[in-house]
Amino acid sequence: MYAIVVEAETDAARRFNAAMLSAIILSVAVVMLDSVEAVRARELLVLDILEWFFTLLFTAEYIVRLLCVERPLRYALSFFGIVDFVSILPTYLGVVLPGFHVLVDVRLLRMLRIFRIVKLPLYFDESQVLWRGLVRSRHRIMVFLCVVLILIVVLGTVMYLVEGPSNGFTSIPVSMYWAVVTMTTTGYGDIHPKTPLGQFVTSLAILLGYGVIAFPAAMVGAEAATSMRQVQRRPRACPRCHTEGHDPDAAYCRHCGEPLAPVDDQ
Amino acid sequence: MYAIVVEAETDAARRFNAAMLSAIILSVAVVMLDSVEAVRARELLVLDILEWFFTLLFTAEYIVRLLCVERPLRYALSFFGIVDFVSILPTYLGVVLPGFHVLVDVRLLRMLRIFRIVKLPLYFDESQVLWRGLVRSRHRIMVFLCVVLILIVVLGTVMYLVEGPSNGFTSIPVSMYWAVVTMTTTGYGDIHPKTPLGQFVTSLAILLGYGVIAFPAAMVGAEAATSMRQVQRRPRACPRCHTEGHDPDAAYCRHCGEPLAPVDDQ
Amino acid sequence: MYAIVVEAETDAARRFNAAMLSAIILSVAVVMLDSVEAVRARELLVLDILEWFFTLLFTAEYIVRLLCVERPLRYALSFFGIVDFVSILPTYLGVVLPGFHVLVDVRLLRMLRIFRIVKLPLYFDESQVLWRGLVRSRHRIMVFLCVVLILIVVLGTVMYLVEGPSNGFTSIPVSMYWAVVTMTTTGYGDIHPKTPLGQFVTSLAILLGYGVIAFPAAMVGAEAATSMRQVQRRPRACPRCHTEGHDPDAAYCRHCGEPLAPVDDQ
Amino acid sequence: MYAIVVEAETDAARRFNAAMLSAIILSVAVVMLDSVEAVRARELLVLDILEWFFTLLFTAEYIVRLLCVERPLRYALSFFGIVDFVSILPTYLGVVLPGFHVLVDVRLLRMLRIFRIVKLPLYFDESQVLWRGLVRSRHRIMVFLCVVLILIVVLGTVMYLVEGPSNGFTSIPVSMYWAVVTMTTTGYGDIHPKTPLGQFVTSLAILLGYGVIAFPAAMVGAEAATSMRQVQRRPRACPRCHTEGHDPDAAYCRHCGEPLAPVDDQ
Repeated sequence: MYAIVVEAETDAARRFNAAMLSAIILSVAVVMLDSVEAVRARELLVLDILEWFFTLLFTAEYIVRLLCVERPLRYALSFFGIVDFVSILPTYLGVVLPGFHVLVDVRLLRMLRIFRIVKLPLYFDESQVLWRGLVRSRHRIMVFLCVVLILIVVLGTVMYLVEGPSNGFTSIPVSMYWAVVTMTTTGYGDIHPKTPLGQFVTSLAILLGYGVIAFPAAMVGAEAATSMRQVQRRPRACPRCHTEGHDPDAAYCRHCGEPLAPVDDQ
Repeated sequence: MYAIVVEAETDAARRFNAAMLSAIILSVAVVMLDSVEAVRARELLVLDILEWFFTLLFTAEYIVRLLCVERPLRYALSFFGIVDFVSILPTYLGVVLPGFHVLVDVRLLRMLRIFRIVKLPLYFDESQVLWRGLVRSRHRIMVFLCVVLILIVVLGTVMYLVEGPSNGFTSIPVSMYWAVVTMTTTGYGDIHPKTPLGQFVTSLAILLGYGVIAFPAAMVGAEAATSMRQVQRRPRACPRCHTEGHDPDAAYCRHCGEPLAPVDDQ
Repeated sequence: MYAIVVEAETDAARRFNAAMLSAIILSVAVVMLDSVEAVRARELLVLDILEWFFTLLFTAEYIVRLLCVERPLRYALSFFGIVDFVSILPTYLGVVLPGFHVLVDVRLLRMLRIFRIVKLPLYFDESQVLWRGLVRSRHRIMVFLCVVLILIVVLGTVMYLVEGPSNGFTSIPVSMYWAVVTMTTTGYGDIHPKTPLGQFVTSLAILLGYGVIAFPAAMVGAEAATSMRQVQRRPRACPRCHTEGHDPDAAYCRHCGEPLAPVDDQ
Repeated sequence: MYAIVVEAETDAARRFNAAMLSAIILSVAVVMLDSVEAVRARELLVLDILEWFFTLLFTAEYIVRLLCVERPLRYALSFFGIVDFVSILPTYLGVVLPGFHVLVDVRLLRMLRIFRIVKLPLYFDESQVLWRGLVRSRHRIMVFLCVVLILIVVLGTVMYLVEGPSNGFTSIPVSMYWAVVTMTTTGYGDIHPKTPLGQFVTSLAILLGYGVIAFPAAMVGAEAATSMRQVQRRPRACPRCHTEGHDPDAAYCRHCGEPLAPVDDQ
């Protein structure tokens, strides 16, 4: 039983984890349907039964996990332990205090467990490539975030002064919300410039903001590409002179002419 | 006749296929015009005649194809066979049951045949480059899709709790629809945050979502660039020592100094 | 006089061209101001005088050009010759037929002359890098445009069937306009899905469309980067063995060890 | 005292600068809250006291800086000196002339001082990489900006003629504002095409504009990637033959086989 619930390597454990993941997704679907007024009015009983079914199922899993694990306290205080506990609480609390029922949505966080299951070596490598790209770019991302924040504050203030509360820019925070919506090119249109000067400033801000905000994607993408190339290159060392860093399509060592093992093209 | 209808290599077949493609595009245009109320009111007769003309033409082509092909059943059950059959059915069914007439739009799927004609070596190579880029990135794309789905579910739920049904976020599914529209920076504006907290959460979500969703384009683009470079490099092997992987502008083998054949720069 | 008006190499010609460009930009500004109701009501006379001034100036330039050029007919029938002629016509025609006055906007096309002036070697090289990137990607761009067109037709038709005329999708062409506005993440919000199924289809379409439409930018960008690197590499050939294709930061020939001339950084 | 206020290298100076930055951010927050009607009505007194506190604090800092600096006049006329002076002026002026009170927002510009503090070597290097990418692309960016401006003027005029003032395109400048909002895919929806021809032109313009505007991000991103790679490569020169430009994962000189120092992977 320990092997099934706690470990993730055996076949039985994998099947158990997949079943629990399906249960989590179904219980999330129940929460979603429960929020639709039309469905709730018609299927109140079925939804209630399903919610209690999943609550009891997750309670049972939580207790089994507590009993099986070597150090129960450590599990109970870990991130997933707290999520597991908090996700079964709202239904029980809802019996006493109806207002707490809404918190059953916390169950959504259990979906994060999908990463426990897919944490196979393959995906792990991939995530690491992305992660290393982000870590390498961290200084650049911080410089960039500061610039974006100052731009948003400045643009928000300028538009608050230019357009004023009568045109929808009721305060600087609201104006900053508009600045974010505009510079990311989302553009809801709930607030938009009405004076000619405001429309001119907006045009400049969009053109500028477009460049500023589109930048990090291109930057991190280039970093990720560099990381990728290194991952692909790494396993190829010359068997005679140990030179590394051969191009992926090289057939001979660029140093001593020794033939190289071909690259596995997945 | 077999050579014209089934094969795609001869000149006659190419001309026949081009003619059929024009007929498909014209029949699609008829379907489009038929949906415009103003045109339909005025040109009902012309549109009906054209629809029957194309239906009879495609019926004739379908029968000829069935007779010409070596294994008629295999064609009838293939993807294009079913599309061909389904695209002529609605007009006939429309005589008996007027409601089925709408399904004539299925004819649009016949446009996919364009890929049968343009499957010339040149375009095939290009598609392969794009396709290999996608296949190589498949693990990364799956990790990314999971993250996006969880983000959409979480953001949708949070905004449903923050804004509530009175501000347009009538249920969690509707809220998730808003989350997709927002995080991709589409921003219709049919639903938008009205409370200060909602506007703050939205601002954060847009800035975060922008980075998350702009990522795969940069990533797949970098992959495609890598594939491209390999395609460009491949044909150049040193005639003496067989070293491959020369830069596109190298004139001599980087290994033994043998002159290389120049790259065809298209 | 020939040297000033026709050629673009001498200093006098450059000054003349810059003056004419300023006149074109000013005349375009007059056309713009003329379209603003408030300005037109107040400054009708000034705007009329300015329009006639620029018309007479451009007429004089046109006549001088015709007289100076070696082959007047060839100039009169060239692209810029026709633009020059058409841009002075509307004001004269406006005297006889008031309706033709609106066509004075054609004068905007004269702004394209900016490319005649900035066609200095420097910018020419840059444009060529961009242009070669586009030319190399032409097959890929055509495959991509076909996919986009089919996606727009399919999505437009599906949404027309799902939402119907009562929800704003009044015909398939209108629905296709919505599909373009949606898949490019513009999202005006003048038309938007209202039924749950329509919102679900839209969510999928946006996520799919985002990937499909963001692709060419990344792709062409990668191509341009490759072209750029080649431009940077080209001038560096080893003075002894003529090997080309050295990395921009290499100090010695990778073949024979001969020192290389340093790269001009920009 | 000189060391603390003017220099930025010592520990005390760093702590003083961090404290002043916090004060600036807090004073900006006060300005923001002051613009929210609800907060202002309730907390008028607190906000006034805080504004006077920060004004006096910044005045004291300004005077100390003037006294400590070697050349007071040069500081007073420098960019930061003017910002410091202008940011304390509005509160004093507001006593005499209430209308000048609004200008207290100028204080936001003091936030730019964050760059004085974070100008540590690390961030400086990063900014330089970004900056060099921009400088290198300057010719390309200028060509691109000209193309974008002409496209906006042309599209704005065409849509003004096609849709006309009755559909919201009241003048060419307004129409150009719409063109910017559309081609950057912001799409507020305050102005949108209503005639079939206008919707067709808009569809084409969005598809074209998307490609044109997404271009510079990819381009500058590729430039930045090139700069980055050079920064990473630079410190690695072969100790024997001084060849530079080794790949980041190379262990031996590609020229003479001498072992290389490993790269610091941050």
